Amino acid sequence: MDFLGRQRRLQAALRERRLDALLVTHLPNIHYLCGFTGSAGALWVTFSGCVFFTDGRYAEQAQAEVQGARVVILRRAFLPSIGEWVARKQRGKTLTTAGVEGEHLSMAASRRLSRAVSGKCRLRDCSGIVEQARLIKDADEIQLIRQAIEVGASLFDDALAVLRPGLPELEVASAIESAARRAGAEAMSFETIVAAGARSALPHGRASQALIPSSGFVVCDFGVILHGYCSDRTRTVWVGSETGEARRVYAAVLEAQLAAIAVVGPGVALGKVDQTARNTLKKQGLDKYFTHSTGHGVGLEVHEAPRVAKGQEELLQPGTVITIEPGVYLSGQWGVRIEDMVLVTEKGCEVLSPGNKEFRAI
Amino acid sequence: MDFLGRQRRLQAALRERRLDALLVTHLPNIHYLCGFTGSAGALWVTFSGCVFFTDGRYAEQAQAEVQGARVVILRRAFLPSIGEWVARKQRGKTLTTAGVEGEHLSMAASRRLSRAVSGKCRLRDCSGIVEQARLIKDADEIQLIRQAIEVGASLFDDALAVLRPGLPELEVASAIESAARRAGAEAMSFETIVAAGARSALPHGRASQALIPSSGFVVCDFGVILHGYCSDRTRTVWVGSETGEARRVYAAVLEAQLAAIAVVGPGVALGKVDQTARNTLKKQGLDKYFTHSTGHGVGLEVHEAPRVAKGQEELLQPGTVITIEPGVYLSGQWGVRIEDMVLVTEKGCEVLSPGNKEFRAI
Repeated sequence: MDFLGRQRRLQAALRERRLDALLVTHLPNIHYLCGFTGSAGALWVTFSGCVFFTDGRYAEQAQAEVQGARVVILRRAFLPSIGEWVARKQRGKTLTTAGVEGEHLSMAASRRLSRAVSGKCRLRDCSGIVEQARLIKDADEIQLIRQAIEVGASLFDDALAVLRPGLPELEVASAIESAARRAGAEAMSFETIVAAGARSALPHGRASQALIPSSGFVVCDFGVILHGYCSDRTRTVWVGSETGEARRVYAAVLEAQLAAIAVVGPGVALGKVDQTARNTLKKQGLDKYFTHSTGHGVGLEVHEAPRVAKGQEELLQPGTVITIEPGVYLSGQWGVRIEDMVLVTEKGCEVLSPGNKEFRAI
Repeated sequence: MDFLGRQRRLQAALRERRLDALLVTHLPNIHYLCGFTGSAGALWVTFSGCVFFTDGRYAEQAQAEVQGARVVILRRAFLPSIGEWVARKQRGKTLTTAGVEGEHLSMAASRRLSRAVSGKCRLRDCSGIVEQARLIKDADEIQLIRQAIEVGASLFDDALAVLRPGLPELEVASAIESAARRAGAEAMSFETIVAAGARSALPHGRASQALIPSSGFVVCDFGVILHGYCSDRTRTVWVGSETGEARRVYAAVLEAQLAAIAVVGPGVALGKVDQTARNTLKKQGLDKYFTHSTGHGVGLEVHEAPRVAKGQEELLQPGTVITIEPGVYLSGQWGVRIEDMVLVTEKGCEVLSPGNKEFRAI
């Protein structure tokens, strides 16, 4: 990974914004900039270099992972200690303007930090600088995302191998998750969704002890984290004898998904992709049951910028990876969602998620 | 669960602090107060009742889960919409003082909220009010914690059934996690740690593709979430022919753990518990390798108040559940940690985690 290049580009972004430094506190941003994968740390980026702060638990891991930054192990309260360190470095210098990640720094933490740097350093909320860079994946990242997707998609076969009426949803999740571990995944990218029968109407129906009914939809939505990068894919299958309504609803969601994918390309507004899915569902009178947005970015985080949502005017750029996942949900009855990950290319897009998505009754 | 009682006690706490309302944004606090277990929501608590806000994805789940609060589904940006709702309710009334959870509300979110309620409502950071209540577990909670601990502890047998030299750490984690699913766990309470050989020196050594060596320590630290409550336990085993040093180090950590448990009781300062573990390790010259704090509270969160750490003057109270988990780590060589969950009782404490913790070579 080109950590040093990322740090250099960030320094250029700071210069443009007339910042002397940026305190990066969002862990995925830290991972992106210097390679640290632990759960406690902060990265202080200036023009003269980067300093990575963590605590004693991560001393060894930081030495092994962090690139392009000096590692400082803090022994006392985290943000006050960082603030004191910064204030010490500023002794005798003019007042510094440092950016902080206001979306990823709590009110209380920002107050502790402000107090510690008081008189030495002015803090300014500059959220989203690193996220903006992360929006465009480089070749190394796309390769890792492809690997995560391949492993993630293979797990659906493990789900199908056990999925049958009478089995608890959790058992299906267990088959998926243990196959993920065997395939080397560090973790699932979010809590595995296996939502069967009436529970399929819950867009976020985490696998539960509920039994798979003798007939109905089963929404399987899951992904893995492999080498730090996430996958995310949904497939919905039907158990039992199929019905005309099941086929009709499924076909409508698939048509909406394909229509949305068909408009993805560079320079296209995110809101247009979302609207295309909605308009397609509207033809079948199903748009009012599509209660969430069409998709989201995926990378080091399973939900990251951009949002593929109503009214988003931001334009897609080559190198961005998003999900396209329309769904329809009829409370207490059924739900269907179909989701793939898509890479925006120079000329259009490439569907990264493999696998059949035709109606499937088992 | 006594959600209404918890809401009433919170209202009394607001009165004491001269607050008209509290906006609860920390999800475990929301779960504690009204039962909602999804990943997006906020609870507005006033003297005239509670209102729970979420988005369309959770409409059905909120109706099913939320107790003691009216459910409002927001269709637009979350905090500005809440702010506008609050401002509308305040029309014509005097300026309200509302608490917010500054430790769990980002700088940026608090600014969006402030803007939306401007002139109608004054926001004050009142972090920790709900956490303070959660510190003392009620009988229902202790029962659920016992169940989670029982399931969590049983998984160690599944780990031992597969653990052998040459196996990737991830395979051990997979055995643990799939048994957790079969036992009905909603999720693991944190990323499973299986850290073998030199990796045992990483206090947070998440299971990796590294192979278990022919001899060395293996730290297994994991827990489950069952009915919302977490378990957390660590056992360290030795693989291969045992050595005198391995036995000596293990015995020292166990002695420190038992000594710390022995002082746990109502009215005892948390720092004293931590210091007891350190002093015991010091006798063997191992205290400098104990690089983290002795423990933490466990409940709806796997890491919650209180901290069992150096210098903490806060006193233990009956009903508090904490971990006691000293460890020693020699970088690049080995690590040992032994962890149990302990309930503070009226007269002393009860070790909740079952199971042998004598030195074990396999």
